[in-house]
Amino acid sequence: MDRNIRVERLIETPIEQQEIEIVERKGIGHPDSIADGLAETVSRALCNLYNDTCGTILHHNTDQVEIVAGRSAPAYKGGDLISPIYVLLNGRATNEFEGKVIATDTTAIEAARIFLKETIPNINPEKHIIVDCKLGAGSTDLQDVFKRGRAPLANDTSFGVGFAPLSETENLTYTTERFMLETLKKRGLAAIGEDIKVMGFREGNAINLTIACAIIGKYVDDLDSYLSIKEEITEKILDRSAKYTDRDVNVIVNAADNIEKGSVYLTVTGTSAEMGDDGSVGRGNRCNGLITPHRPMSMEAASGKNPINHSGKIYNLVSNKIAHEVTKKVPGIQDIYIRILSCIGRPIDQPLVASAQIIPEDGADMTLIEREATVIMDEWLADITRITEMLAEGTIKTF
Amino acid sequence: MDRNIRVERLIETPIEQQEIEIVERKGIGHPDSIADGLAETVSRALCNLYNDTCGTILHHNTDQVEIVAGRSAPAYKGGDLISPIYVLLNGRATNEFEGKVIATDTTAIEAARIFLKETIPNINPEKHIIVDCKLGAGSTDLQDVFKRGRAPLANDTSFGVGFAPLSETENLTYTTERFMLETLKKRGLAAIGEDIKVMGFREGNAINLTIACAIIGKYVDDLDSYLSIKEEITEKILDRSAKYTDRDVNVIVNAADNIEKGSVYLTVTGTSAEMGDDGSVGRGNRCNGLITPHRPMSMEAASGKNPINHSGKIYNLVSNKIAHEVTKKVPGIQDIYIRILSCIGRPIDQPLVASAQIIPEDGADMTLIEREATVIMDEWLADITRITEMLAEGTIKTF
Amino acid sequence: MDRNIRVERLIETPIEQQEIEIVERKGIGHPDSIADGLAETVSRALCNLYNDTCGTILHHNTDQVEIVAGRSAPAYKGGDLISPIYVLLNGRATNEFEGKVIATDTTAIEAARIFLKETIPNINPEKHIIVDCKLGAGSTDLQDVFKRGRAPLANDTSFGVGFAPLSETENLTYTTERFMLETLKKRGLAAIGEDIKVMGFREGNAINLTIACAIIGKYVDDLDSYLSIKEEITEKILDRSAKYTDRDVNVIVNAADNIEKGSVYLTVTGTSAEMGDDGSVGRGNRCNGLITPHRPMSMEAASGKNPINHSGKIYNLVSNKIAHEVTKKVPGIQDIYIRILSCIGRPIDQPLVASAQIIPEDGADMTLIEREATVIMDEWLADITRITEMLAEGTIKTF
Amino acid sequence: MDRNIRVERLIETPIEQQEIEIVERKGIGHPDSIADGLAETVSRALCNLYNDTCGTILHHNTDQVEIVAGRSAPAYKGGDLISPIYVLLNGRATNEFEGKVIATDTTAIEAARIFLKETIPNINPEKHIIVDCKLGAGSTDLQDVFKRGRAPLANDTSFGVGFAPLSETENLTYTTERFMLETLKKRGLAAIGEDIKVMGFREGNAINLTIACAIIGKYVDDLDSYLSIKEEITEKILDRSAKYTDRDVNVIVNAADNIEKGSVYLTVTGTSAEMGDDGSVGRGNRCNGLITPHRPMSMEAASGKNPINHSGKIYNLVSNKIAHEVTKKVPGIQDIYIRILSCIGRPIDQPLVASAQIIPEDGADMTLIEREATVIMDEWLADITRITEMLAEGTIKTF
Repeated sequence: MDRNIRVERLIETPIEQQEIEIVERKGIGHPDSIADGLAETVSRALCNLYNDTCGTILHHNTDQVEIVAGRSAPAYKGGDLISPIYVLLNGRATNEFEGKVIATDTTAIEAARIFLKETIPNINPEKHIIVDCKLGAGSTDLQDVFKRGRAPLANDTSFGVGFAPLSETENLTYTTERFMLETLKKRGLAAIGEDIKVMGFREGNAINLTIACAIIGKYVDDLDSYLSIKEEITEKILDRSAKYTDRDVNVIVNAADNIEKGSVYLTVTGTSAEMGDDGSVGRGNRCNGLITPHRPMSMEAASGKNPINHSGKIYNLVSNKIAHEVTKKVPGIQDIYIRILSCIGRPIDQPLVASAQIIPEDGADMTLIEREATVIMDEWLADITRITEMLAEGTIKTF
Repeated sequence: MDRNIRVERLIETPIEQQEIEIVERKGIGHPDSIADGLAETVSRALCNLYNDTCGTILHHNTDQVEIVAGRSAPAYKGGDLISPIYVLLNGRATNEFEGKVIATDTTAIEAARIFLKETIPNINPEKHIIVDCKLGAGSTDLQDVFKRGRAPLANDTSFGVGFAPLSETENLTYTTERFMLETLKKRGLAAIGEDIKVMGFREGNAINLTIACAIIGKYVDDLDSYLSIKEEITEKILDRSAKYTDRDVNVIVNAADNIEKGSVYLTVTGTSAEMGDDGSVGRGNRCNGLITPHRPMSMEAASGKNPINHSGKIYNLVSNKIAHEVTKKVPGIQDIYIRILSCIGRPIDQPLVASAQIIPEDGADMTLIEREATVIMDEWLADITRITEMLAEGTIKTF
Repeated sequence: MDRNIRVERLIETPIEQQEIEIVERKGIGHPDSIADGLAETVSRALCNLYNDTCGTILHHNTDQVEIVAGRSAPAYKGGDLISPIYVLLNGRATNEFEGKVIATDTTAIEAARIFLKETIPNINPEKHIIVDCKLGAGSTDLQDVFKRGRAPLANDTSFGVGFAPLSETENLTYTTERFMLETLKKRGLAAIGEDIKVMGFREGNAINLTIACAIIGKYVDDLDSYLSIKEEITEKILDRSAKYTDRDVNVIVNAADNIEKGSVYLTVTGTSAEMGDDGSVGRGNRCNGLITPHRPMSMEAASGKNPINHSGKIYNLVSNKIAHEVTKKVPGIQDIYIRILSCIGRPIDQPLVASAQIIPEDGADMTLIEREATVIMDEWLADITRITEMLAEGTIKTF
Repeated sequence: MDRNIRVERLIETPIEQQEIEIVERKGIGHPDSIADGLAETVSRALCNLYNDTCGTILHHNTDQVEIVAGRSAPAYKGGDLISPIYVLLNGRATNEFEGKVIATDTTAIEAARIFLKETIPNINPEKHIIVDCKLGAGSTDLQDVFKRGRAPLANDTSFGVGFAPLSETENLTYTTERFMLETLKKRGLAAIGEDIKVMGFREGNAINLTIACAIIGKYVDDLDSYLSIKEEITEKILDRSAKYTDRDVNVIVNAADNIEKGSVYLTVTGTSAEMGDDGSVGRGNRCNGLITPHRPMSMEAASGKNPINHSGKIYNLVSNKIAHEVTKKVPGIQDIYIRILSCIGRPIDQPLVASAQIIPEDGADMTLIEREATVIMDEWLADITRITEMLAEGTIKTF
């Protein structure tokens, strides 16, 4: 079995030692993330529908979700939407198989509406959202019918990338958004909206976290209350950051607020999609949840792509899995970069190349690293259909 | 005050004495009626919104609702929709007034979704329907702002018509649909869908009621069960009809069924909008709930038209009101036909002409009839804004 | 062959002797007429496509066209559209037949764009119009495949109506619109837009023609020029009318103009669809080109309905054909009303009833009339597929 | 003026010396590139419209274009589209300014239709395309009104990246697509479609160019003709490549073709958007025309973003300009990476940081490089509004 696995030593200033680092995370309520989330949710719902009704996953791509922003009139203690957020579920899905029609459209709509209710709880789905669906009819090439353990043929010539470990700034950027939603919001700061954007910027040993956070008007009494919420968020993030880094951390929340004019980042629902900010699949976070311009990235819009033979999606996911497993199991690695390239029509367990670039620690045994990394890469590629299963189960994230 | 009221004696074979009569009623779940119902519901919701937020009703026309049919896989004991029914709320509504923005779009969507749930209870609004909204921004001419008792200026040169009383066949056609939904369905025949079309055809003294009735699969076990439901419906309608007419009544339900092929009128939701039948405003019943080719009719799509100064809508409604009141209060009338024509820019209480054509009974006092009919017509026209109020309250029907 | 042809003498004041008559014609550029025209044009283009590629006409219904108005900034000597007119081609069409795919969507779009260019020449189709197409996939029941001379089965229980001859007011209303476009516009009054609405109202021996006519700004220099164009139109129509009737004729053009405010009916393109007026199929003229509330009418949206077995469409057209032929060939008829009712599933040459109501002239031989009318009705019904052919050829009008 | 310019020496294996390189270019007819091209074309048309009517560029973002694929029946010597390609122009644009309405929608549609005709000449715009437009109304903050030389305030906290020079593989990948369209197609290979995707993959000293190229059926007689066209393309590219690199070059065109089955990459129009491949803005090439996973990249969808104060767009463009100018003017640089980060609300000529990472050649004078690079960066930032002008003129590419 030819996998063309190539492990290469890379000479490079490790990320932590570079002067400047820029990292971005778009939180789950950012319009681009909502689009990604819907695309992947609909794909997962279709996987389950296909498994239930046909015993296998059929071909589909639901990666063309569009969020067209609404229009809102936010207010302290309340506010309402004037025009709804318009969600277009787009793409293609097999809706006939062996003479049976399959309820792809209605399944997609239901899954999308449930996702929106769960993800942005302050949206009233009966009046604030239009979920439209224009899934075209796709067809399933029988040779690509998903069978556990047998690799289907790559749909295209494309690549995936991954790296590990996350740098301190990357980690902080990622976890700050999670902390705000999972901890601060749940422990009383209900005003925190799901639309959070964290821009991490490290300059030497100073880390700046510039945070845009939609504040939900109905939980805020007035401008004073707004300001004290911002202050509390800032302090809590500073406290938390101190536990995770020795570097100086600076936090700014909603830098564009103009207090004199009373112009602040207030929303009705907690997402800027209610007022002017559209969203698209594939414009936001990469599969590891971050945008990292100084690291290898793929442009692939992974969310919503078919999980069977879309090599771009699958290779991005498996590259990150490999990178993390290698750094965890193999000692002596500072940074590892994985790139995997498919060839259209060739089984996806046999890429054109699977490359690892490794920056070893001083004195590390590169021969050992190479051997062990190769084994791990080979195992993941041999078991590539496991990624498909994890996607159908929802146990792996795409954004 | 010039109302140009004209009462004329009409020489004409009264409808009951004509050989042939054709009458149609599209029930509330027929796609065209759903469109009418949504158009009027949205208009009413906007009236209430405007009254609440601005103290008066502002300009709007919501009469462009489109129902694009879905695709279904009906089955005994169940079935599901493959593709949803797409509902487009279209038209125009004032969304800014005296510096205030008004939540017309979200109000329209919410009202439409509630209407659909109530009207077609077997639709699952979370997966079977897309409610889209493309209400354009309208504007309100200040001189037309609604004030009780002061007639606004007609928006156009258009007319309304009405007649009374209903003939026996008209009555039977209308009430048969009501009886099926309000009595039969509620007393156990849950399988009766809301999409009922009754075609009444009288030939001399024989009345044929050809009924198309969507049957809801989940309440039906199998073909035998379907057939016995049809039989029960047929018998109950025959029994009931016998109480209301001495003519021979013949009832046929779902004439297109092909029992051998097992091809019958089975649905998932109770409306043919789930499978292939689109609907539009203004194509179905006239304001009196019927389509009557042998009677004066207007082409006006009344549902959803603005209730303030849309003369076509208002004159159709008031014409029917007048016709019924005159036949009720003035003795000696066999048939009365009302036609009222507006002149654009002239107050709607001053039509270009308000005409009554009357077929008196033998020996009736035509002078008396003329005088009393004129009084009633004058009163209704003088109090024309009452129609606007009844529309906002929902106490008058448009289809 | 049972056609259940019934001829009945009707006692009724003939229309010319009634006191009041109201007649309306919406010209070819009225938004509702544009919708009708597009629906029928697309149907005809599909008929030709089907004939060319499959040798027969396949099933389709293209009667759900919607015109959503644009937004314009009209001006003397120029003006432009701000937002385009949106045209939605909707309905259903068979796009696969005997293993062949058929280019229904692209054919529909091309036909619609050509129709719009020809019908409203001052529209710039590259920037003023969006032609969208959401034709659903239909299917063709093989037993309905069109074969010359063999009547297909009725698609539904529905009816058509027709009458003849046109009254003087009806005639004048109809021909005035034609005269404005075909004569006045072509002979120099280029400013006349295609969106003309004529409301004819006869009160005794006085006929009022209230005309709304979109004036095209680029052919008008200023307000004075506008007023003299209106004056010329008015005079020319009065001159012409005098040749066709001895009654007094009164003509008002653009009654809603407010000269002091300079508010007049100026457009960029010649249709009010450019600014606020939406259009739908089936809301305008009946198959004879008129709306006549005092005459039998059907609510059928004939334009765009399939020309093979849609009994509502076919019976409306054939009813008018019959009415005109009978009045032309059979002496002694003042008014004739035709109504034909289909039964779903029964061949369309065998209606449930084909009724003629006749008001004879004094002294006419009713027995003879009855016999000859019956023959003519029978011939038309026997040759009912001729209507289908005329529709495919475009030699019969639906609005 | 604080620009926080930071120049840093980077220790890194230069790209040419790394073992593996992966580079991708999506040609101008790839659905994602069509989306990018439309987004940018519409933005440019609006810039010109605003300049003409208001004397300045007003706020807009037209970066939400969606291409929904059509359905085609390609054939040798011909073929046709069954369903059209649907293009949605989405985003926001100021359509009122100082009391004037601005024809943004119609201008956008016209620009888009012209672009499509020029970019994909084998598309028939009268039947193969729907150009829909749902540009929301935006508004222009007066402080951001574009004035030459005065830097507006950043719209967001975002960054841009750039690098230079292109590696040999990057160069070859980019120019191969250009060569195919600009040279081969123009010199007789008319069958080459505009939808070309080149995947460059270097493994040591072997460069593989995997090319997917839509072939236009009407210029191809049969399968043999198709194969000889492929052969000619392959040879011409090999010949040309030999002039630009000493490395071994391998070229594969349309790897997924299955000759036995006769299944090849044939199209009607030259783009896969005609059959199943949707397109979105921002998923394809970065501002330098390439996707380069081993190089710093931004996720920014630059095309269609407003050219005045959208820091993400402007910084990506200026970063590439800086990188190229520095490598051209300053000797001794192997690779340079530029990253610029904005702060919302701060003038865009004063970024939070402007970082250059430089891999010098052996023996280069890093102090000199640092000084000169700083000067060039400062100049470009000081003159940042020049980028806005170049965008309005169309003299700078975004994809």
